[in-house]
Amino acid sequence: MQNAHLQPAAYPINLTHKASLIDQQWSPRVVAEMNDYQFKVVRIEGEFIWHSHPETDEAFLVLEGTLRIDLPQGCVHVNPGELYVVPRGVMHRTAAQGEAKLMMIEPRGILNTGHEDDARTAQNDVWI
Amino acid sequence: MQNAHLQPAAYPINLTHKASLIDQQWSPRVVAEMNDYQFKVVRIEGEFIWHSHPETDEAFLVLEGTLRIDLPQGCVHVNPGELYVVPRGVMHRTAAQGEAKLMMIEPRGILNTGHEDDARTAQNDVWI
Repeated sequence: MQNAHLQPAAYPINLTHKASLIDQQWSPRVVAEMNDYQFKVVRIEGEFIWHSHPETDEAFLVLEGTLRIDLPQGCVHVNPGELYVVPRGVMHRTAAQGEAKLMMIEPRGILNTGHEDDARTAQNDVWI
Repeated sequence: MQNAHLQPAAYPINLTHKASLIDQQWSPRVVAEMNDYQFKVVRIEGEFIWHSHPETDEAFLVLEGTLRIDLPQGCVHVNPGELYVVPRGVMHRTAAQGEAKLMMIEPRGILNTGHEDDARTAQNDVWI
């Protein structure tokens, strides 16, 4: 998809609306690309698994609800309109009480579970 | 600043609040980094100059107000919670009637005016 957007898009992307179209939680969907990075939206609820991405930082922007990110030293709570970047190699676990809608930004090809081969690994590079 | 965030931050970044701290319009300020990319916030009003970035796509997320992006084929209007990616090499001009607050995402080192040497080129890599 590297060259799919060389023509400017006709419309902007409404992130919360896109997230609301996803049929299941914990299933990131790509909504746009910037160079070799992807913008993904996801609906989450409950707790994910601990994992890390040794090769890349990972950015989270909260659209609705509250995202809790568990980190080795404690946790942060990220509210709508707030951004948090998990540095590469840092173990983390995303969680939400009730549903949260998020945008994630990371290089194309990064799996949601890092290098954990887990039942919760989502299919990658699926657009919505 | 490449390695400045190897330790997880203690708090998320409230983007609108950060933008409100900037003392002048059209002066992007860096709020976070992800690998070699920077997240910048900016307050704009009126029209910028036409320019392009031949080396990179550029992403805009609107926080408050409405961003108009003029493009060779017309314009798009981007509202709060909406994302728009201007493809590399595409001429564009940002504008807003009344003030708009935005987040921009682009590789470190990209000037706001592209390769136009203009009075409106802002100082680069200034954090807030």
